[in-house]
Amino acid sequence: MSFNVLGRDAKSRARAGLLATAHGEVETPVYMPVATQASVKALSQEDLESLGVQAILSNSYHLYLRPGTSVIKQAGGLHRFMKYDGMILTDSGGFQVLSQADLRTIDDHGVSFKSHIDGSAHRLTPEKVIEIQSELGSDCWTALDVCAPYPSDEAQTRLALERTMRWLDLSEKAFLQKKAEGSKALFFPILQGGFFAPLRLRAAEHMSQIKTDGISLGGFSVGEPKELTWEILDKTVQSLPEQKPRYLMGVGTPEDLWEAVALGVDMMDCVWPTRVARNGQVMTRVGKYNISNSLCRTNFKPLESSCSCFVCRRYSKAYLSHLHRSRELSAHRLISYHNIHLMLVLAREIRQSILDGSFTEKKREFFSQIKKDSKDVLAHDHFSP
Amino acid sequence: MSFNVLGRDAKSRARAGLLATAHGEVETPVYMPVATQASVKALSQEDLESLGVQAILSNSYHLYLRPGTSVIKQAGGLHRFMKYDGMILTDSGGFQVLSQADLRTIDDHGVSFKSHIDGSAHRLTPEKVIEIQSELGSDCWTALDVCAPYPSDEAQTRLALERTMRWLDLSEKAFLQKKAEGSKALFFPILQGGFFAPLRLRAAEHMSQIKTDGISLGGFSVGEPKELTWEILDKTVQSLPEQKPRYLMGVGTPEDLWEAVALGVDMMDCVWPTRVARNGQVMTRVGKYNISNSLCRTNFKPLESSCSCFVCRRYSKAYLSHLHRSRELSAHRLISYHNIHLMLVLAREIRQSILDGSFTEKKREFFSQIKKDSKDVLAHDHFSP
Repeated sequence: MSFNVLGRDAKSRARAGLLATAHGEVETPVYMPVATQASVKALSQEDLESLGVQAILSNSYHLYLRPGTSVIKQAGGLHRFMKYDGMILTDSGGFQVLSQADLRTIDDHGVSFKSHIDGSAHRLTPEKVIEIQSELGSDCWTALDVCAPYPSDEAQTRLALERTMRWLDLSEKAFLQKKAEGSKALFFPILQGGFFAPLRLRAAEHMSQIKTDGISLGGFSVGEPKELTWEILDKTVQSLPEQKPRYLMGVGTPEDLWEAVALGVDMMDCVWPTRVARNGQVMTRVGKYNISNSLCRTNFKPLESSCSCFVCRRYSKAYLSHLHRSRELSAHRLISYHNIHLMLVLAREIRQSILDGSFTEKKREFFSQIKKDSKDVLAHDHFSP
Repeated sequence: MSFNVLGRDAKSRARAGLLATAHGEVETPVYMPVATQASVKALSQEDLESLGVQAILSNSYHLYLRPGTSVIKQAGGLHRFMKYDGMILTDSGGFQVLSQADLRTIDDHGVSFKSHIDGSAHRLTPEKVIEIQSELGSDCWTALDVCAPYPSDEAQTRLALERTMRWLDLSEKAFLQKKAEGSKALFFPILQGGFFAPLRLRAAEHMSQIKTDGISLGGFSVGEPKELTWEILDKTVQSLPEQKPRYLMGVGTPEDLWEAVALGVDMMDCVWPTRVARNGQVMTRVGKYNISNSLCRTNFKPLESSCSCFVCRRYSKAYLSHLHRSRELSAHRLISYHNIHLMLVLAREIRQSILDGSFTEKKREFFSQIKKDSKDVLAHDHFSP
């Protein structure tokens, strides 16, 4: 087995584990920064190393369109192309084709679309998506899926799920073929079913007949209210096997991390920490604020006083506020670095708390300190040691 | 004396020296990266340290407008604000007021203008510019000057020069007052005179009566043909004292570095290496090419094969070409880093060649290898070891 559960929380479904991949072990729960186009936005691979990033998410669809799979294959695979040595999980691109591509038509065998970059015509099938991931040489592969938009009614969602399951059968066959040919990749196909518990259970039942290494939970964070996310996630996870890692796709604020782990999630990714950073939003363990807040202009303390990242060890809010206001590119990198650092620190703390039996207590503590108002966040930080 | 000449080339006016400042010694000839808004665009101060940058140029006018001198004073000065410990030379902003500010009116005592940022009204005088630099705490101060646009006739240029000289007298008084109050800053006022040799000689004569630590040569690189730059620079430098460092403002491609040093220049700055980097232009010691050149798409060698910078040690043209095409922010930082690294390496090689007596030979060698066509640059690099 590639995944081992090393500890469980007594009062929730949280667990701490270790996932062995072709590019190192990944300690779970893990937050994976997103490198959609083979780059975690504004950061370099030196930055990922100094942050201690063990796993990232990249995107088959984006890399297939640009630079093209053949370029990456020529480079010796995605790890060599990027010069990143940790675990890479690749999203299938199903979500992106459906939400970003122009003029897409979906049929029983795949999806035809025009590139959002240059309008060229393409077709993705379940087999093709496995082939792309094989050429990329990523460590964990997903499968082509159909993600129902939100809101969708039960009939629509069922249709999307049925197609996803049919494609999954084809994907499994293609994956096993690659495995037989020597691939070391792990299979993390995507479970759909929208926000209808019976459909999620149907999906889980189908998934149980597939030879998987882990299960990706897709179709969340598509615009639904958070309570619905947790309600359906809760029911879905309960119907999954204990021994397999569960990867919740596209969900990942600090609060989400605690909530999802409590429900039994092991892996998460989210563009949020880097996306908001480019807009000046700073994450702290007690909440967020924007660096353009006028209180930052003459605040010579770090972004977060208790933080140990290189940005907080050296630069002040006042300096980063100036860089952001002056539209200096460094602001994006420095704030992104800090935000990702916080996510990784929280994931490590969560893991440690599961192992030492304090998860539920630490979770309560975390939420009790969260401040909704950015003024309160700044005031709290100002009086921190 | 703050400046010591340690070696001279026998066949040109090139010299190697050491400038002692309140923030370390600067080995000359030196190329100074530009941090107009207290940031070398796309780089962090960690990057400046790993590059071995001993001196940077910042801009009084820009910092006065944003974040405002009082913010930087509160931070404990520009070095503490930026967290940069090397030498900082500040441009007066005369050039920027005249070229960037809205609705400026210039009179005998100073210049009134509206901010290009928010339209607010401001006035700079010679005394005010010294005061600003004192509050910034930079190491080398310039003086408010009037830079005649190109082309200007002799009468216009003379008018600008006369105003510059009158202002310089006032600036000197203000500088000496700050010195008497304990300032450790060095005085590098700006010599104008346009492209009229007699006016440059007049300016040099006036400058010789001022208590300066070094001389900034302004009014070059304003749109004139290169031959004119060198012709007037040549005549100007000949009329300057031997023992003072000469700083040629705003000039600094690799070719410029060799030419200007041969004419007796010690210090240079230029935004060019970082500005073109953001447009994808890669500098090498044999010429330049754009990373978006289709030849780069599947070239898995570094930006420059002979380069030892961290970017070239790790990443390929193909990867950087992908990042640039995909508009990933890291492309700006990585190419900027490489370009600045080249400038610093060239400046160090120039210095060494002056000290070991091979400057003229090395200069000839450098120019003989320059290729004008980017295809030739790429081909040369491709066959490099």
